[in-house]
Amino acid sequence: MSNAKRSGVTAPKGFMAAGGACGVKPDGSFDLALIASDRPAVAWGVFTKNVVKGAPVIVSKENLRSKTSRVIVVNSGNANVLAENDYKNAKAMAQTAAEFVGCAPREAFVASTGVIGQPLPIEKVLKGIETIAPYLRPSGGKDAAKAIMTTDLAAKEAQAELKIGSKDVLVGGVAKGSGMIHPSMATMLAFVTTDAAISRPVLKKLVKEANEASFNRITVDGDTSTSDMLLVMANGASGAELIDKPSGQRYAKLLSAVTSVCVDLARKVVKDGEGATKFVSVKVTSAKTEKAAKSVAMSIARSSLVKTALFGEDANWGRILCAAGYAGVNFDPSKISLNICGKPVFQNGKLVSADWEKKVAPLLKKRDVEISLDLGGGNASAEVWTCDLSHDYIRINTEYRN
Amino acid sequence: MSNAKRSGVTAPKGFMAAGGACGVKPDGSFDLALIASDRPAVAWGVFTKNVVKGAPVIVSKENLRSKTSRVIVVNSGNANVLAENDYKNAKAMAQTAAEFVGCAPREAFVASTGVIGQPLPIEKVLKGIETIAPYLRPSGGKDAAKAIMTTDLAAKEAQAELKIGSKDVLVGGVAKGSGMIHPSMATMLAFVTTDAAISRPVLKKLVKEANEASFNRITVDGDTSTSDMLLVMANGASGAELIDKPSGQRYAKLLSAVTSVCVDLARKVVKDGEGATKFVSVKVTSAKTEKAAKSVAMSIARSSLVKTALFGEDANWGRILCAAGYAGVNFDPSKISLNICGKPVFQNGKLVSADWEKKVAPLLKKRDVEISLDLGGGNASAEVWTCDLSHDYIRINTEYRN
Repeated sequence: MSNAKRSGVTAPKGFMAAGGACGVKPDGSFDLALIASDRPAVAWGVFTKNVVKGAPVIVSKENLRSKTSRVIVVNSGNANVLAENDYKNAKAMAQTAAEFVGCAPREAFVASTGVIGQPLPIEKVLKGIETIAPYLRPSGGKDAAKAIMTTDLAAKEAQAELKIGSKDVLVGGVAKGSGMIHPSMATMLAFVTTDAAISRPVLKKLVKEANEASFNRITVDGDTSTSDMLLVMANGASGAELIDKPSGQRYAKLLSAVTSVCVDLARKVVKDGEGATKFVSVKVTSAKTEKAAKSVAMSIARSSLVKTALFGEDANWGRILCAAGYAGVNFDPSKISLNICGKPVFQNGKLVSADWEKKVAPLLKKRDVEISLDLGGGNASAEVWTCDLSHDYIRINTEYRN
Repeated sequence: MSNAKRSGVTAPKGFMAAGGACGVKPDGSFDLALIASDRPAVAWGVFTKNVVKGAPVIVSKENLRSKTSRVIVVNSGNANVLAENDYKNAKAMAQTAAEFVGCAPREAFVASTGVIGQPLPIEKVLKGIETIAPYLRPSGGKDAAKAIMTTDLAAKEAQAELKIGSKDVLVGGVAKGSGMIHPSMATMLAFVTTDAAISRPVLKKLVKEANEASFNRITVDGDTSTSDMLLVMANGASGAELIDKPSGQRYAKLLSAVTSVCVDLARKVVKDGEGATKFVSVKVTSAKTEKAAKSVAMSIARSSLVKTALFGEDANWGRILCAAGYAGVNFDPSKISLNICGKPVFQNGKLVSADWEKKVAPLLKKRDVEISLDLGGGNASAEVWTCDLSHDYIRINTEYRN
């Protein structure tokens, strides 16, 4: 296989993937993926905080205790949540995937996405694992990316490369979208692989940091699914030196690469929302703490009033400041400044000269919109990403299940 | 004047109101209201927690320190927020209203609602106060109700009566709507009057309790305005015995009456949202604490996915349970039960028999929809009210300012 065909989760050395159709989706499209390492890897993950957790999340969290990991099995079309035998079926998926990869069941992770409350056709899934396992290959990343999609319009992959010592190290990732789409469950799944060598405790810290700077910075409709997960596997196949402490240059370089892959995937998730017509960056600067900056940015990004105004290409600065004001963060309204698409709108608590709207209006017609709010009271900042709230959001989510 | 004409805030004895057009609204409709007591009253209020507070909120909070209160002056069409001379203009409104009622400026409250960031045409407002003050009368409640409207479709008044000892006591109220409408500022204003006699510290507690059980139980789009306020005035004109402690039968009776007026107004605010096609009650039972019950109920009521499903008349129980799960409240999913419009959907963690949807579907076509979730783990409960999320919400909020 040529190296050119390696992409996403199979870009790093030693990772293989496969995707196919096992019959969970009635239209016969791809609905089953395997992502595997050819040698024992270390893994860590973060999962939905929803009290109502899918059985696959429960099984994957259990298997996080294993010191080594080898495979991720994913089906789309059925979330295996609040359904008959859900836990038993998730365990069976892990066991069967492990069997065909040649590892212990605890070395397997399970993820499912799709409708909830419906029994998973487990026989089809297990038979499907058996069928696609022989197709596990270094060029299989794209098939896996396709197989985990539900109503995503495009497959989502990302890669990054770095040097550790003299060794080339790769990071790859794949994701499926969330919210705003057909989000009966708004599920976001993301899997990231790397051929870096890293110890498990250090990977744990790295995953938390990368997630905080990426997937925790996006919001579509504020809903949190029962099945969300981010899993990161590192198999050391690059031959690079082991990263065994959560500091220093090697750690910083890998963290930066994993974060860039996660940010790329997170932004693709936001851009691919059905109904979304705008990609919106909200940046808050001069806050007292990063947490405060993020709270204010998220409050703006979540506001239905702000999001409908952006869909209408209306520079409604009042809604933006209002949403900033109810974020639970204290600031002095007389010191704030607001830029929309790079143009000053509000400065030191006052609207700028009367012609600001003429300057901003044409820029709001573009797909990418930037809101920058300076709180005038500190050195911390944060950026988050969201989309607008459109007629199609209502249409899609109203008609779902009909 | 006949007693029949008294309504809303002028139902209780000793209260007068007036409404008229002073020219803030360009179409010449009513935009100025006065509500006054013919004798010194005690007052308390609760205000928006938004960091970005309107100048009228700031002035009214200052005047809450006064031991007695006499008048509330309200304009609609301009929120006097983040606008030139906003604080000075709010002070001038209080001072002029006080002058024409014959009280100290600190005995006057000020409220404004409408567009923000535009200078208030203060000369028109002050002239308007002078013009309408002579029309202050016991039958003026309806004019005041009309004058505080922005894009509300209907004026909102409520009354309740009770006996304290041998005395008839009345409670009346007026409100204007919030969110989902043209909520550039989503402002909710509510004013409640009573001829009960109550001490100021006891009224303070009563207002907090009544607000918590009413206006704090509604959500339209989750946005919180810069100008929200609830003010309650009690003037003792009924001649009933003074309520001087926050316990006992007299306190309980007045609390019940004020709460019922506030609940009535709060429900009217939700029902009157432009774009709203459904009035939705969300009731959570068997929670460990009332706070937990309310958190779960609010999480469901705020979910865009739940609200679009209800607009589509779709019994999407998965979205309801998912929203319950991310409320930040711990519960056991295997013990929960869900009724929609009184019909069992989900019991003890499992979907009920296959024909539940046939039973629920016709009921979802009605305007009033009820969601009841039993958490199966305690004795506390809470009910909140919301509306659906419709195409018209997007249309109205997209086109605003265009």
